[in-house]
Amino acid sequence: MLKKIPNILSPDLLKTLHEMGHGDEIVIGDGNFPAANYAKRLIRCDGHDIPSLLDAVLQLLPVDDFVAKPITLMEVVDKSAEKAPAIWNSYENILNHHEISPGQIGYEERFDFYERSKEAYAIIATTETALYGNIILKKGVIS
Amino acid sequence: MLKKIPNILSPDLLKTLHEMGHGDEIVIGDGNFPAANYAKRLIRCDGHDIPSLLDAVLQLLPVDDFVAKPITLMEVVDKSAEKAPAIWNSYENILNHHEISPGQIGYEERFDFYERSKEAYAIIATTETALYGNIILKKGVIS
Amino acid sequence: MLKKIPNILSPDLLKTLHEMGHGDEIVIGDGNFPAANYAKRLIRCDGHDIPSLLDAVLQLLPVDDFVAKPITLMEVVDKSAEKAPAIWNSYENILNHHEISPGQIGYEERFDFYERSKEAYAIIATTETALYGNIILKKGVIS
Amino acid sequence: MLKKIPNILSPDLLKTLHEMGHGDEIVIGDGNFPAANYAKRLIRCDGHDIPSLLDAVLQLLPVDDFVAKPITLMEVVDKSAEKAPAIWNSYENILNHHEISPGQIGYEERFDFYERSKEAYAIIATTETALYGNIILKKGVIS
Amino acid sequence: MLKKIPNILSPDLLKTLHEMGHGDEIVIGDGNFPAANYAKRLIRCDGHDIPSLLDAVLQLLPVDDFVAKPITLMEVVDKSAEKAPAIWNSYENILNHHEISPGQIGYEERFDFYERSKEAYAIIATTETALYGNIILKKGVIS
Amino acid sequence: MLKKIPNILSPDLLKTLHEMGHGDEIVIGDGNFPAANYAKRLIRCDGHDIPSLLDAVLQLLPVDDFVAKPITLMEVVDKSAEKAPAIWNSYENILNHHEISPGQIGYEERFDFYERSKEAYAIIATTETALYGNIILKKGVIS
Amino acid sequence: MLKKIPNILSPDLLKTLHEMGHGDEIVIGDGNFPAANYAKRLIRCDGHDIPSLLDAVLQLLPVDDFVAKPITLMEVVDKSAEKAPAIWNSYENILNHHEISPGQIGYEERFDFYERSKEAYAIIATTETALYGNIILKKGVIS
Amino acid sequence: MLKKIPNILSPDLLKTLHEMGHGDEIVIGDGNFPAANYAKRLIRCDGHDIPSLLDAVLQLLPVDDFVAKPITLMEVVDKSAEKAPAIWNSYENILNHHEISPGQIGYEERFDFYERSKEAYAIIATTETALYGNIILKKGVIS
Amino acid sequence: MLKKIPNILSPDLLKTLHEMGHGDEIVIGDGNFPAANYAKRLIRCDGHDIPSLLDAVLQLLPVDDFVAKPITLMEVVDKSAEKAPAIWNSYENILNHHEISPGQIGYEERFDFYERSKEAYAIIATTETALYGNIILKKGVIS
Amino acid sequence: MLKKIPNILSPDLLKTLHEMGHGDEIVIGDGNFPAANYAKRLIRCDGHDIPSLLDAVLQLLPVDDFVAKPITLMEVVDKSAEKAPAIWNSYENILNHHEISPGQIGYEERFDFYERSKEAYAIIATTETALYGNIILKKGVIS
Repeated sequence: MLKKIPNILSPDLLKTLHEMGHGDEIVIGDGNFPAANYAKRLIRCDGHDIPSLLDAVLQLLPVDDFVAKPITLMEVVDKSAEKAPAIWNSYENILNHHEISPGQIGYEERFDFYERSKEAYAIIATTETALYGNIILKKGVIS
Repeated sequence: MLKKIPNILSPDLLKTLHEMGHGDEIVIGDGNFPAANYAKRLIRCDGHDIPSLLDAVLQLLPVDDFVAKPITLMEVVDKSAEKAPAIWNSYENILNHHEISPGQIGYEERFDFYERSKEAYAIIATTETALYGNIILKKGVIS
Repeated sequence: MLKKIPNILSPDLLKTLHEMGHGDEIVIGDGNFPAANYAKRLIRCDGHDIPSLLDAVLQLLPVDDFVAKPITLMEVVDKSAEKAPAIWNSYENILNHHEISPGQIGYEERFDFYERSKEAYAIIATTETALYGNIILKKGVIS
Repeated sequence: MLKKIPNILSPDLLKTLHEMGHGDEIVIGDGNFPAANYAKRLIRCDGHDIPSLLDAVLQLLPVDDFVAKPITLMEVVDKSAEKAPAIWNSYENILNHHEISPGQIGYEERFDFYERSKEAYAIIATTETALYGNIILKKGVIS
Repeated sequence: MLKKIPNILSPDLLKTLHEMGHGDEIVIGDGNFPAANYAKRLIRCDGHDIPSLLDAVLQLLPVDDFVAKPITLMEVVDKSAEKAPAIWNSYENILNHHEISPGQIGYEERFDFYERSKEAYAIIATTETALYGNIILKKGVIS
Repeated sequence: MLKKIPNILSPDLLKTLHEMGHGDEIVIGDGNFPAANYAKRLIRCDGHDIPSLLDAVLQLLPVDDFVAKPITLMEVVDKSAEKAPAIWNSYENILNHHEISPGQIGYEERFDFYERSKEAYAIIATTETALYGNIILKKGVIS
Repeated sequence: MLKKIPNILSPDLLKTLHEMGHGDEIVIGDGNFPAANYAKRLIRCDGHDIPSLLDAVLQLLPVDDFVAKPITLMEVVDKSAEKAPAIWNSYENILNHHEISPGQIGYEERFDFYERSKEAYAIIATTETALYGNIILKKGVIS
Repeated sequence: MLKKIPNILSPDLLKTLHEMGHGDEIVIGDGNFPAANYAKRLIRCDGHDIPSLLDAVLQLLPVDDFVAKPITLMEVVDKSAEKAPAIWNSYENILNHHEISPGQIGYEERFDFYERSKEAYAIIATTETALYGNIILKKGVIS
Repeated sequence: MLKKIPNILSPDLLKTLHEMGHGDEIVIGDGNFPAANYAKRLIRCDGHDIPSLLDAVLQLLPVDDFVAKPITLMEVVDKSAEKAPAIWNSYENILNHHEISPGQIGYEERFDFYERSKEAYAIIATTETALYGNIILKKGVIS
Repeated sequence: MLKKIPNILSPDLLKTLHEMGHGDEIVIGDGNFPAANYAKRLIRCDGHDIPSLLDAVLQLLPVDDFVAKPITLMEVVDKSAEKAPAIWNSYENILNHHEISPGQIGYEERFDFYERSKEAYAIIATTETALYGNIILKKGVIS
């Protein structure tokens, strides 16, 4: 453990976030995401939900201001659904807390999301059980 | 994730618990325990406290009935303290839930505890912040 | 060995089943299946037949309810054969025991089956000697 | 699988038996034996009992005729027990079948047995559940 | 060394033959065959000729009865040659001894033979000096 | 690069500081320190002086309050020297800035310092050219 | 440290520069460059700016006289900008000091620059914060 | 060192030459050849010129008599040059000494030579400074 | 294969002999010698007898003239035996052929021989079946 | 190859010299020195004599001025010899050229020299054939 570093960030995750550069992406996958199969670099966070990880990661990781949508969620399959998945509300609150607006969130169709995950710098495997929780963050710059 | 397996147990931890045999020991260390330095096999559980791990581990791991004290805590340095460390109460509840009585708990002086940890089959590194939380479990038999 | 875990599941197999995510596939191959040649991850279970493995795996691994056919067998070459291979009866019983119906079983032509095996997350090599015993399981979700 | 080779012998076990030389020892441990902790080379045979392994190993491995006791069992702790452990009967039958007489069996006190296991060329980890099943074989010569 | 196993088969070769499945191929190359360059798995048998290896391998390895030509030789370049290469006589004798008929031998043009070798499960490198000695065996089933 | 993390701390150094536990030590060696020879874990920081590293490390790493002297310098060989090495002044300023008093600094004879360095969790190799710059930090607790 | 070798060049960087041949390229990336993602061989120089590295590298590395533009910078996106990025002035001074003229500098569009970086022999990761600092050097010959 | 083996041939080079088969190629590159970048297997011979290596290699390595041009040099770019590169004279003498005639030397255009080098079994990196020194040898047969 | 190198010497064995220096020892063990257990470096020569290896090794390896007994055999246990083991005659002939006299042969008691083998640079594992065939060679100098 | 770096210094040797710190030792062994057996880190320089290496190394490596004898030679066994080994003259010239006087040369008895070599940071293996050529250099400081 270190000063200023949230406890939930393991040494390997911290090192991975540090190594990433401008434009590199990291996926935070839910408990059923095939992370071990798709990941170039796998960071396991068993026992944790995604909001806890998301908030901790954003305390250290800047997101990319050079693109319109540095945050990506998986598109809801049934587009007639009246409401967005419940977990997205908590995401908006966390993102807002880190000064990222809802307008900076993009959406990717399920299989496109999978293909993009395979190209990500790393995938964090959580055991989040909410539906539509998978999220991709694109790293920004430190100036 | 799998049926019957608590989410907090990672694939590596599950594999490690499985590989251990009768008499092998596993340490669950707190957030300041020098786990990376002492461990033959290190299992990181950043962001978790010890009671959550302890309860999950005991759902799968039998403790050793062949010895009087299969559970070991680190002896309080200031023996004139009136009360046991607060976290020990939660341990007693969890152990009781798994049919392990307070009489099966032994105590090891701090530096002896460290030396014994170096010989353990594995050390789990948590980020538990309570004092005197380190605990050693000796695996029993499956019959 | 651990509580709740069938003895036939080795630490590596247990870890592998745990790591798999939604949609990942695992092949249980018979004794002549070229498992070492095709497998991304190889789990050897020499001396065991497939029904024993199948039953043990399904105690922990959910199968995919999002697809119509989460179970796949290798199509019989001689389609005029009057009867299904004998081992399929035992498979239906085991699957039924785990609440998987015959309608959830699909069939793949031999060489397609091989190509699909090469993409599977893992292959279990048994020494099953019955014909047409190879089987693929697609992992479902834990909710 | 190969002609002449019992199915229960995995490629790694076969290779290990072949590599051993005159006087090298192999332990076949029961399901609670701390094999992963003690073994220089670990061969897992999850799901198998010791008699099946013992018979298969002795079809290929000669035992040492240069010493009086090429076979070693773990001494029963309670020496007043009226009868030898039940599994020893099956061992005597198997050994007899391979022309090894009861007189060639030695006994080692439990902790001496453990120390000797640490020096063995390899340990086979079974999931045998009978008591006092652990056995050490000393390899003989091929002439 | 082990009972029943010809001395010429090293532990690694034995393990490799065991791991192979139905349809996997193994090449026995002569002393000038670019084995180290082409092999997925290389087994060196320096100092040995091919007939000795061939006979030993066939004592354990079944050849594939599901295809017409489980044995493959390299086609003679000068097809007007009156006689088959001398070493092929010894091959026919060895094959005959293992109940494989001349009709089960196929021929592959030199560069096709090379390409096929690159896909083989393993290549055995001998120091055979006879011309046209290279041979491919396709593994059959154990029932 | 990450928010809150001084640029001079590489991903590996950050990971190493994070992994260390209570009582583990890290050495910051000067440019002539035989770091590659003595280090269990070596972190190279070529081109940097020690004060820059020291200040950056102390922004994240707590020092041990359980011991009297969590900071260790190498004792000056010529004890009749009138003044402490010049670089020690800058160290005192940096330590003071991180609320570590001069009284918390201990001194170790040169060869004892070397032996202790070999037991440290890690050694940082700088190219500091000042004399008597080597320094050992003992990690404290995060509560 | 060695005679004649600037302190900022680590043993790994020195070895890498030495191994490179005529026409091989090395990238010196700024602090936000996705170096860990793109590099075949990654050399981290955390805490350093690019001019310091550039000058040190050019003391040992000849640049390629066989091509017109052995030095490559990343093209400014907004071509209407009145002035070149400030850091390029310092580059010109350093290059001039090593007898490389401004005419030997080429420019590569941003994404072409990225693709070329992936093919480079190595990437040096600095923590340079100036814009448009990334630079590619093509190694020349020693005669 | 060994009897019959020229001192300049290191154990790794000797092993590499031995492993090569009929038709495999080895490149001896000059001091500026990008050997570390192109080589599947790299053998460094720093401090040596090519003629010394060439002569030593040819004492052990037969060249391929099945092709017309088992030796390949890099074509001179300026074809109007009146004379062949000076080092080629020394090559002809060495080749002649090993009974290889000038007619057995082929020429490859520079970039074709590079592409072919990438496919070679190994590249020897010398520090030869003469121009047009790079040479490829195709191994022949031992009968 | 290479010119001047006996076919029985594999690339690894050739490399090993080359790496050895003055005074280093190599053991040629018979088929029952526990070579895999004792060897720092193991060279398998399955299917070969010791005389073939001995003769080939001595064509390249000088033996040590600085000691009286550069060759060591294992002392016969039953010293009353009237005759030396039969294989020693063939050894004397081979040694004589390489100008090593019987007087240069020393003898080591069995368990001393084993201990010495553990310190040898390498052990060659043959499948020699003759008794008392194990032999140690001490490398001499090339001048 | 690099500017300022003698061609005979390979990338690995250069890296090794750089990594060494004050007081670390490097051995330059002759062609019969058991370098592969004794070395913690082995640098092969086949085909080179020691004087060439010595001169090149000393162009970059400072020797230790803090000890009286930073250079060590192996003591001549026959102390009645009238003259020092011939190669020592060339050493004195080279050392003198690098401002190291004969008085800075120490001598170590043969077996003490061997034991000390085992503790050295690295050993360079040359193929020097002169007697008494082995030499140890103790690295000094860069200030």
